[in-house]
Amino acid sequence: MAGNIFGTALKISTFGESHGPALGVVIDGLESGFTIDIDHLQKQMNRRRPGGNPLGTKRQEGDSVEILSGIFEGKTTGAPVAILIRNTNQRSSDYSAIAQLYRPGHADHTWQQKFGIRDWRGGGRSSGRETAARLAAGAIAMQILASKGVTLQAYTIQIGSIVAKKRDLSQITKNKVSTVDAEAALLMEQLIERVREEQDSVGGIIECIVNGLPVGLGEPVFNKVEALLGHAILSIGATKGIEFGAGFAVASMYGSENNDQIDKSGFLSNHAGGMNGGITNGEPLIFRTVIKPTASIGKPQKSVDIHGQEHTIIVEGRHDPSICVRIVPVIEAMTALTLLSLWYEQYGR
Amino acid sequence: MAGNIFGTALKISTFGESHGPALGVVIDGLESGFTIDIDHLQKQMNRRRPGGNPLGTKRQEGDSVEILSGIFEGKTTGAPVAILIRNTNQRSSDYSAIAQLYRPGHADHTWQQKFGIRDWRGGGRSSGRETAARLAAGAIAMQILASKGVTLQAYTIQIGSIVAKKRDLSQITKNKVSTVDAEAALLMEQLIERVREEQDSVGGIIECIVNGLPVGLGEPVFNKVEALLGHAILSIGATKGIEFGAGFAVASMYGSENNDQIDKSGFLSNHAGGMNGGITNGEPLIFRTVIKPTASIGKPQKSVDIHGQEHTIIVEGRHDPSICVRIVPVIEAMTALTLLSLWYEQYGR
Amino acid sequence: MAGNIFGTALKISTFGESHGPALGVVIDGLESGFTIDIDHLQKQMNRRRPGGNPLGTKRQEGDSVEILSGIFEGKTTGAPVAILIRNTNQRSSDYSAIAQLYRPGHADHTWQQKFGIRDWRGGGRSSGRETAARLAAGAIAMQILASKGVTLQAYTIQIGSIVAKKRDLSQITKNKVSTVDAEAALLMEQLIERVREEQDSVGGIIECIVNGLPVGLGEPVFNKVEALLGHAILSIGATKGIEFGAGFAVASMYGSENNDQIDKSGFLSNHAGGMNGGITNGEPLIFRTVIKPTASIGKPQKSVDIHGQEHTIIVEGRHDPSICVRIVPVIEAMTALTLLSLWYEQYGR
Amino acid sequence: MAGNIFGTALKISTFGESHGPALGVVIDGLESGFTIDIDHLQKQMNRRRPGGNPLGTKRQEGDSVEILSGIFEGKTTGAPVAILIRNTNQRSSDYSAIAQLYRPGHADHTWQQKFGIRDWRGGGRSSGRETAARLAAGAIAMQILASKGVTLQAYTIQIGSIVAKKRDLSQITKNKVSTVDAEAALLMEQLIERVREEQDSVGGIIECIVNGLPVGLGEPVFNKVEALLGHAILSIGATKGIEFGAGFAVASMYGSENNDQIDKSGFLSNHAGGMNGGITNGEPLIFRTVIKPTASIGKPQKSVDIHGQEHTIIVEGRHDPSICVRIVPVIEAMTALTLLSLWYEQYGR
Repeated sequence: MAGNIFGTALKISTFGESHGPALGVVIDGLESGFTIDIDHLQKQMNRRRPGGNPLGTKRQEGDSVEILSGIFEGKTTGAPVAILIRNTNQRSSDYSAIAQLYRPGHADHTWQQKFGIRDWRGGGRSSGRETAARLAAGAIAMQILASKGVTLQAYTIQIGSIVAKKRDLSQITKNKVSTVDAEAALLMEQLIERVREEQDSVGGIIECIVNGLPVGLGEPVFNKVEALLGHAILSIGATKGIEFGAGFAVASMYGSENNDQIDKSGFLSNHAGGMNGGITNGEPLIFRTVIKPTASIGKPQKSVDIHGQEHTIIVEGRHDPSICVRIVPVIEAMTALTLLSLWYEQYGR
Repeated sequence: MAGNIFGTALKISTFGESHGPALGVVIDGLESGFTIDIDHLQKQMNRRRPGGNPLGTKRQEGDSVEILSGIFEGKTTGAPVAILIRNTNQRSSDYSAIAQLYRPGHADHTWQQKFGIRDWRGGGRSSGRETAARLAAGAIAMQILASKGVTLQAYTIQIGSIVAKKRDLSQITKNKVSTVDAEAALLMEQLIERVREEQDSVGGIIECIVNGLPVGLGEPVFNKVEALLGHAILSIGATKGIEFGAGFAVASMYGSENNDQIDKSGFLSNHAGGMNGGITNGEPLIFRTVIKPTASIGKPQKSVDIHGQEHTIIVEGRHDPSICVRIVPVIEAMTALTLLSLWYEQYGR
Repeated sequence: MAGNIFGTALKISTFGESHGPALGVVIDGLESGFTIDIDHLQKQMNRRRPGGNPLGTKRQEGDSVEILSGIFEGKTTGAPVAILIRNTNQRSSDYSAIAQLYRPGHADHTWQQKFGIRDWRGGGRSSGRETAARLAAGAIAMQILASKGVTLQAYTIQIGSIVAKKRDLSQITKNKVSTVDAEAALLMEQLIERVREEQDSVGGIIECIVNGLPVGLGEPVFNKVEALLGHAILSIGATKGIEFGAGFAVASMYGSENNDQIDKSGFLSNHAGGMNGGITNGEPLIFRTVIKPTASIGKPQKSVDIHGQEHTIIVEGRHDPSICVRIVPVIEAMTALTLLSLWYEQYGR
Repeated sequence: MAGNIFGTALKISTFGESHGPALGVVIDGLESGFTIDIDHLQKQMNRRRPGGNPLGTKRQEGDSVEILSGIFEGKTTGAPVAILIRNTNQRSSDYSAIAQLYRPGHADHTWQQKFGIRDWRGGGRSSGRETAARLAAGAIAMQILASKGVTLQAYTIQIGSIVAKKRDLSQITKNKVSTVDAEAALLMEQLIERVREEQDSVGGIIECIVNGLPVGLGEPVFNKVEALLGHAILSIGATKGIEFGAGFAVASMYGSENNDQIDKSGFLSNHAGGMNGGITNGEPLIFRTVIKPTASIGKPQKSVDIHGQEHTIIVEGRHDPSICVRIVPVIEAMTALTLLSLWYEQYGR
């Protein structure tokens, strides 16, 4: 397996499995002299940690972080910052019954075929737990961006067929689904409880907005902001698509509608979502990503084992009825890492 | 500017501007001993070349390719294949009137801010013409994939609000919009003619399907097939989003609907679009990308010049009312390059 | 700081400082299904660990390794293998007296200027201790190469002006300087003891030989075997040069002497050192690297502090009179990582 | 074949064969707004072009450069600069007699084994002619560095056993061997004429000095200045080693001799060659590289053909008795590209 390293001027290298001893990340390319806010880092971790949300998995992980390097007297030295997150609440027995089965919607089949060996305990490295390492790195990137005036926020805008009608960012922390519409929040929470009872799961859509970006981040051809963010976001398990600005709706728009006209005060609209020609244009950067329903469900499904024998499979374990909510901070993390990397490309460290 | 190189095991490096002497590409990492089909290569070029489609721009470019290296006695040697495409029909005078103006929807403003200098003749390197180089490289990748049993095809499925209802691949070459539904084709063609008359433009959606992929391409974490294809496709100008398999529709699906169950005969559905955990699963790989309406329109628009003065701008020149059709082969090209690169990563050259 | 990641198809990402909590490495791109020999891994670590050689530093570190990921039921899964090495015997007080001084021959001055902050405890990340992480990764690469029939061995051939006259590989483990000539070994040991008493240090030369390589590793232009090995070896602190095959001696040779002629039995000589045109030719690969005398010496030296004030500095601490011996396994490690990466490029994983 | 791309923040991608239509380079990552001096560029090309030196090959190539992109109104735009160098004086017939033979000291054998196909006309891409592309890119990098106050110069210091005893840089252009000692120059020229008459060849050593570097270029672990320069220089065909500062001589030095002590005025010596801990320290950067005798010689040599049959081979053609002189500007080129890339990493573009 390759591809556990991400980034251009700023690179992260992640490791770890769902039921192994630990997860972690090495961050290479940070500027020196920055004071990391450990509290903020841990808070971001908590937004995603198993057991941190009453609507999510019942697995309990503190996801406390240990920083192993790159900090001296509280500040980054420029050396790589390595962060370790120990696993403490593995329960591999949940998986032994299905060790030889391919769970529908999971990577069991493809990993077995590709590698000839597979850590079946909680999906091994194909587990969503892998994103804890990204989150730790991303929290630091968010802090550094904030010190440069760039702030970013992701939030749920759809769970199942329930769509947020408002964008009230102050609501995000006031409900259990990290959404921006108080009314929709209630319905989303109810929906998630219902699908949990039904041993089922449901998908959703997350939006992310970035404010305060300068004009000029992104490289015009293969490393357009959209391209790098597309890479970053679609590398998160369970994502099935991404759109920027007006997104898929532009298919049925006319150029005269979609073009963002300009006057002395700036752009008159933001259908582009904050970029032109792959370069940030100073407007808020906006994109949406769609999250599939959690693949692990308690309903009986048809599948085969590694020998090709047919079975009915019921995936036991402590699963999230909607993984969407816990992916929200991961979207922020990958976005921050991508943008800070482009910042360093443009301005140096 | 960086980021004019794309790929992992297989890399392309492109160069050239819309109104400069030439465009070109260097392909690094091809296998040796492969006989390139120059006719097929030129045919792919023709699908995108300016003047090649009666619904497109009136600029006439032969886009004939000159291979400069990497071929000996008709076969690839393993050395880089460099391909040159001379520009012959530049008409820079079209642009001199707007040299100091920022065209809405274009990269004029962001490039000026980022680089402090800008080749305003036809957009310079931010022109869609840049994709001719990708197309040449991609045609070779398509040929090599075909020799390994992998075939791929992109086609229009939406222009404006006209949606293809069928997937009849035999239709693609029988209409002027590269679509898969004969009835929709007529309406799409009429729509494009109408928006041209109205000095306007319109967007669309392209779908791409890849058959014959083995199980096991793609790397599970940051280099998932979706992530690399997302990077590849979203690096094409005018794209605003990408979705895989069931795409954005999975937001409102249940896990029990969306999961692709399995029996002895294989997968019972393909909502995933041919991948699990970022690795090809042997099913057809399917994705869709949305193309914005051409930014260059003849309708008056508000804008400013490089000194911040307000103007009404009318973009003259020879523009496509819908760039969608000419992007179809570019989608194929970037897809082929991405997949061949992953092939080499997995199996060597 | 960037550049803490090394490799092409196989990549390592290292972290950690001399007096921080831990050092470590993430290895990305290993094949799956390989059984790692932990004993061999620890033995390689012991060859370099502080306190492991009576001629070396008196700092005592067990350098015991903890594998955090990538192994399941004893075998590599293809997921990244992360290895942690805790520091246990830091004695930072040795350094507090010289925290503000630039030690001659060290990176104190350049780091302070580059980063504006510097972990002065034992040199922080510029310490030779950084190589422990490379060693752990390299030991695994050596094991995998051995399973493919490729074996490699580094050894001292010069300490100060004492030169090994023989190449008796069986001697390497029988003396304290890892050399290949029993007679020279005695003189080298005496020399090292003498310079220790004199509060001084001395340089040396290490040779490395690789047997069993197939014809065809290496890429002909920028990634020649020599180029990648040059990168790998010269990235080890204290190295000041590298030469391949006949090396610097070829300057005064004629082509008719230096060319390795060929008959049916193979090459008639190996002045090239196992490569032609940057590609392995099936002969033993041979190179030498020169190691400077340890910069930390107890003799008084002129220097300045971070404010530019002049001082006489005496570097206390527990230093190696010749770092050469402890670099021997690091040379093996970086060589193995480079060659295994080229193997994967050529043959896949 | 991979590995035709070199660099970090600044990348070059080269292509072309000795007897193909053209050689070329794409330079990605240059700053915008820089006025390229085409005269200087062509002059650097002339220093290496075949036929440009009475002591070198009799092949005549103008090596005139065509810039295809990246320049607008005389200035770099930030877009990739592509440069084309047409071959005009190929004489492939020289090679047809030995098309099936492996020339000793050449890459014929390794390429045939690695790729299964080989452009035998003048060595194809393994020809030294490949470096013309590097030279073009490097000349631009030298110009940009010069505008930042960094100047660099390479020169011959040894041909065969004749060693330059002085470092009089004003001599470089006054003799045919680009050396720095007028007396040695005469002897070197005589030696080269003699070996030409004897159908033989001879090696040499080139030194390179860089002045005006700021403190702080280079990354401390794997991308040390030495490591990147080692990679760059050892990727040039015919190089067999590189050493920095005092180089291989440090093996027999004591730390108290070798350490560069410091007082208020700066470093008291420069044994390190301008770097500490892999980072430039403000002193002149100095290194030497050894060049093997030209492999193509007219003397009879033993070899085999691609079927393993033994032959006596006499390499006809128009070869340099010492390739050393023509490599001098290539050393400058690769050095400039490496340092400018590190400059951009540190300071942005």
